[in-house]
Amino acid sequence: MVIVLNTGYTKDQVSELVNHIESKGVKTSITEGNSKCIVGVVGDTTIIDDDEILSFRYVEKVLKVQEPFKKANRLFKAEDTVIDVLGSKIGGSNLGIIAGPCSVESEEQVVEIAKSVKESGANFLRGGAFKPRTSPYSFQGMEMEGLNLLKLAKQETGLPIVTELMSTDYIDKFVEDVDVIQIGARNMQNFDLLKQVGRTNKPILLKRGLSATIEEWLMSAEYIMAEGNESVILCERGIRTFETYTRNTLDLSAIPIVKRLSHLPVIVDPSHASGDWRLVEPMSKAAILSGCDGLIIEVHNNPQKALCDGQQSIKPNKFKFLMEKIRVLAEIEGKVI
Amino acid sequence: MVIVLNTGYTKDQVSELVNHIESKGVKTSITEGNSKCIVGVVGDTTIIDDDEILSFRYVEKVLKVQEPFKKANRLFKAEDTVIDVLGSKIGGSNLGIIAGPCSVESEEQVVEIAKSVKESGANFLRGGAFKPRTSPYSFQGMEMEGLNLLKLAKQETGLPIVTELMSTDYIDKFVEDVDVIQIGARNMQNFDLLKQVGRTNKPILLKRGLSATIEEWLMSAEYIMAEGNESVILCERGIRTFETYTRNTLDLSAIPIVKRLSHLPVIVDPSHASGDWRLVEPMSKAAILSGCDGLIIEVHNNPQKALCDGQQSIKPNKFKFLMEKIRVLAEIEGKVI
Amino acid sequence: MVIVLNTGYTKDQVSELVNHIESKGVKTSITEGNSKCIVGVVGDTTIIDDDEILSFRYVEKVLKVQEPFKKANRLFKAEDTVIDVLGSKIGGSNLGIIAGPCSVESEEQVVEIAKSVKESGANFLRGGAFKPRTSPYSFQGMEMEGLNLLKLAKQETGLPIVTELMSTDYIDKFVEDVDVIQIGARNMQNFDLLKQVGRTNKPILLKRGLSATIEEWLMSAEYIMAEGNESVILCERGIRTFETYTRNTLDLSAIPIVKRLSHLPVIVDPSHASGDWRLVEPMSKAAILSGCDGLIIEVHNNPQKALCDGQQSIKPNKFKFLMEKIRVLAEIEGKVI
Amino acid sequence: MVIVLNTGYTKDQVSELVNHIESKGVKTSITEGNSKCIVGVVGDTTIIDDDEILSFRYVEKVLKVQEPFKKANRLFKAEDTVIDVLGSKIGGSNLGIIAGPCSVESEEQVVEIAKSVKESGANFLRGGAFKPRTSPYSFQGMEMEGLNLLKLAKQETGLPIVTELMSTDYIDKFVEDVDVIQIGARNMQNFDLLKQVGRTNKPILLKRGLSATIEEWLMSAEYIMAEGNESVILCERGIRTFETYTRNTLDLSAIPIVKRLSHLPVIVDPSHASGDWRLVEPMSKAAILSGCDGLIIEVHNNPQKALCDGQQSIKPNKFKFLMEKIRVLAEIEGKVI
Repeated sequence: MVIVLNTGYTKDQVSELVNHIESKGVKTSITEGNSKCIVGVVGDTTIIDDDEILSFRYVEKVLKVQEPFKKANRLFKAEDTVIDVLGSKIGGSNLGIIAGPCSVESEEQVVEIAKSVKESGANFLRGGAFKPRTSPYSFQGMEMEGLNLLKLAKQETGLPIVTELMSTDYIDKFVEDVDVIQIGARNMQNFDLLKQVGRTNKPILLKRGLSATIEEWLMSAEYIMAEGNESVILCERGIRTFETYTRNTLDLSAIPIVKRLSHLPVIVDPSHASGDWRLVEPMSKAAILSGCDGLIIEVHNNPQKALCDGQQSIKPNKFKFLMEKIRVLAEIEGKVI
Repeated sequence: MVIVLNTGYTKDQVSELVNHIESKGVKTSITEGNSKCIVGVVGDTTIIDDDEILSFRYVEKVLKVQEPFKKANRLFKAEDTVIDVLGSKIGGSNLGIIAGPCSVESEEQVVEIAKSVKESGANFLRGGAFKPRTSPYSFQGMEMEGLNLLKLAKQETGLPIVTELMSTDYIDKFVEDVDVIQIGARNMQNFDLLKQVGRTNKPILLKRGLSATIEEWLMSAEYIMAEGNESVILCERGIRTFETYTRNTLDLSAIPIVKRLSHLPVIVDPSHASGDWRLVEPMSKAAILSGCDGLIIEVHNNPQKALCDGQQSIKPNKFKFLMEKIRVLAEIEGKVI
Repeated sequence: MVIVLNTGYTKDQVSELVNHIESKGVKTSITEGNSKCIVGVVGDTTIIDDDEILSFRYVEKVLKVQEPFKKANRLFKAEDTVIDVLGSKIGGSNLGIIAGPCSVESEEQVVEIAKSVKESGANFLRGGAFKPRTSPYSFQGMEMEGLNLLKLAKQETGLPIVTELMSTDYIDKFVEDVDVIQIGARNMQNFDLLKQVGRTNKPILLKRGLSATIEEWLMSAEYIMAEGNESVILCERGIRTFETYTRNTLDLSAIPIVKRLSHLPVIVDPSHASGDWRLVEPMSKAAILSGCDGLIIEVHNNPQKALCDGQQSIKPNKFKFLMEKIRVLAEIEGKVI
Repeated sequence: MVIVLNTGYTKDQVSELVNHIESKGVKTSITEGNSKCIVGVVGDTTIIDDDEILSFRYVEKVLKVQEPFKKANRLFKAEDTVIDVLGSKIGGSNLGIIAGPCSVESEEQVVEIAKSVKESGANFLRGGAFKPRTSPYSFQGMEMEGLNLLKLAKQETGLPIVTELMSTDYIDKFVEDVDVIQIGARNMQNFDLLKQVGRTNKPILLKRGLSATIEEWLMSAEYIMAEGNESVILCERGIRTFETYTRNTLDLSAIPIVKRLSHLPVIVDPSHASGDWRLVEPMSKAAILSGCDGLIIEVHNNPQKALCDGQQSIKPNKFKFLMEKIRVLAEIEGKVI
């Protein structure tokens, strides 16, 4: 941490600040010159809030040196975290391929799609039972019934279930029925939800918020891990920018950065990022080469009749074709599915 | 709603689409020419999802004509909504001035600040008991104890309490103790929370999300209203942009736009928007002239010792001075506090 | 300037870096601890490129302490710069009100509007002769003929002319005919143009780029000033964000920040920022209260027939009415027009 | 084009608008209902400015149906444009690999790097002679001398030269000496420069502006093409977002979109996008799989001594290693270098 004082600072202010900071058990050193005073702080600075230091009226700015996350930090755990769910793995040299419909609509639909994506090589089944929708008048998901249909599809295929949890009221049910609990982009900073899933023993798929920085995203992972659950899978799904041709802007540069900063696995959602089925193939392939640990792809047997997000879903035969290409690229990258 | 078909569309596709849409009880009309086909749709189009139409593979784009919100829409309720909380009003020609500390820290602190801001002219007391913090290692608020201290401050001053709810677990407690329930920016699309506060009879202060469009913000208000609670106060608190000199970019243009689109009152939070106490005065004054219905301002008797956000809090005497200016401007704008 | 080294740095690297930096005549100091090394640098660090330091592979990041602009910096010139153009002033306690049509269309049009805005109290005339348009197929302005019509309008009213220069080919002509040379948002980092207008003795109105940070904007002013021309008027005209209800997001928080960082005057363009005539009044008023030094407003006698930007132009009678309100607010702010 | 009228529109207004629009030789059709009126417009709507229509005060909004670019539009030229420069090709099934130093610094430097990148498989040489720098106090390039050194490097290697033009003053010189003229991101909407290079017969490498939408970018290509020069190579180099870990956010989704909308080749600049040499390899590989037509990569023999952008330059041996991987991926994508 580096603290810069306002021009016109006094010796007394420097002393006050240094005493305040050193009382927290960290070391400081002072550089003065050209009307500027810089206070360098080393030691475990994660315990010092920027806010607290900025409250001193003679502080001009606070610059961060150390990343504020600990348990998610690769500095403190060098080897990749590998999440193993009923034998399907994500992380290290393992690519996780999660596929399925945006929302569960009927037994026939979800079972048929599950069988098909499994055959093509997916190792996880996705499907929304509770759906976060911008409008209260849109289809909100089949809810508990949807959860039951996912279980049927799992029975038929053996694929572990990935599905989104939107309310703490259903945590017990999710812990019982679901294999990976998804926290959606809109809830990435729903700290109450993060803390509560942090007290479960289920792997958590944590989507990046629409305007979350990489640091904030990792801090949300830290919320889960701080409660004891260290099985977090990060998921890049596009960020909000000024560009309107795509629903969001897929930030693939975030992948190598997250891999450097953290030991947690990070996957990519090309379907939500683009909102356009025509971009799913190129963005899936690009994602693999960016170094990600997996993909989550929307597949629907009849996109035109899909109750949500049909425009970003690909058909089962297109998915099969894509998986063939992904396998070739995975091999080049030294990964296995 | 306007639907544009891909170049190369067929007559059969047009028929299929038109039949599908008209089955929902709306009217369509078709314009063709220059290899383009445009389908205009009129009637109650809020029941048609864009997503659903985009799922038809021959649809190029869907353009919205009608705003997707109803209960929040000024089209269906021309007069301003005025929220009256124990005699303190927001909306119409009434400015609501909400002031108090970022977080409740002690009885002495919150009571002293409450008395002071009341004397200066504030008509609501703010104070965080549950605090949304980026880091799990930062102070998370005094929680239930904080809520009790707010009640003490209300007893002393008569000021209605505005405080943030982060978890559905505390809704009953908030309904009992709190006068205005705040939904924070990070929870603006926590739809479970929105629905649940929509079933209470308390006024809701709904902050705009960091990257929420005006439309999404109004759709979140619609979630609350659709459950029966029509007392929603909107709050602009800055949006996320590339600029880093301010914590967020205060979007004052949103104020006249919201006033045109909706009958709901909209207030401004200059403290969180800028993250800098030096900007609170100019941005408060500018906000009044942009046509807002009130302000929410952080005031702390000892910002340097504040447990959070001290750098954006102003001192009681500065608040008093600011209120004098605000009164002059309010009069010019034809508003009363 | 503060330099943070990668974890795993060596003593030799620290020495190499320190020697390199001190050879430039600045002072360094080193703080080590917890596997981090921080090098504080004080003195005239504006001569050191971040890029240069970041090229050292063992450097993790470079944090800026000092603003990189000098001539534009309030630190080196405490008093406000006042620009006086034929008696019309901008800066200090003087508000400059620049009004006129988006583009010059005919003698009748520009003279009529000029007379009208003068009567209402504007002290500068704006009008585009050369127009930057997104499409090569849109009206590009009357060019030289437009410039001549502006001169006629000036003869009739005495109002100094503000108009945009897009090509270095016309600099001599502009120096001869124009009173304030405008550099548009799209050319804010057209460094060749900046340098060339920096060698003239005309005041320059420098618009902020669509995605320019405040620092980049001031650095562009610095380009002009470094060539000898210190008469720069900054103009905030909205930045690009994800919001689509307004053409741009007017960043009024930038005003108090620029006033603190720089001695240069800064004005606001509510017309281009919003792209909507209905927002011109509230945003003009809000701008005055944010502490700006003036406004530039599009006024057209027949917006429906305007050759460009009619939707953001207000009519002369609306402008007159707005000027009455602005005069009241100016007085409150201690400003004169 | 679709025009939506304000609620409360009158029959006379509809007639006025329709007459105005049809006078331009396009067809309209009207849909009314539920207090809304929608006017669909088909035909060559590129000649109608949105602005012009929005100026009618009873128009609520204008929605675009047709892309506003013509010469750059794939609709009017289905086959890929292939640019051939002295036998090195970009477009169709040809990958162009442009490599070299950020700025030309000495004969030894540029010749050595040119030889090395050629040996590794690059087919174009890049190198800055005129450098756009945020600060007037930073190194601005070797200018004319730099251009001469690039010519020497071309003599030695036969690689065509790609270098940036910042001033119209040097156009003749560039036409004589340079093989591909680069227009930088900051000049993407310097319309004077675009028009002037549009009158040359040299291929133009047009970088996307920091906050340019895909449509604006293609409209800037249209400026060049409208003057007669149809040899435009587009270059995605990252857009400005809120994320600060990378200098810009590389928008790879733009690649398949540009390929769909336009016949022009589009390449990717992973060096400027990330500003970090560690991201050059993963982003180069991801770019190839996104379907781009080439890469432009900064290579420096001694990044630590580079006069600019050393931190984003890779060393020759790293480039060699990267080219081996790129060749494998190119083959998978059915491309040749």
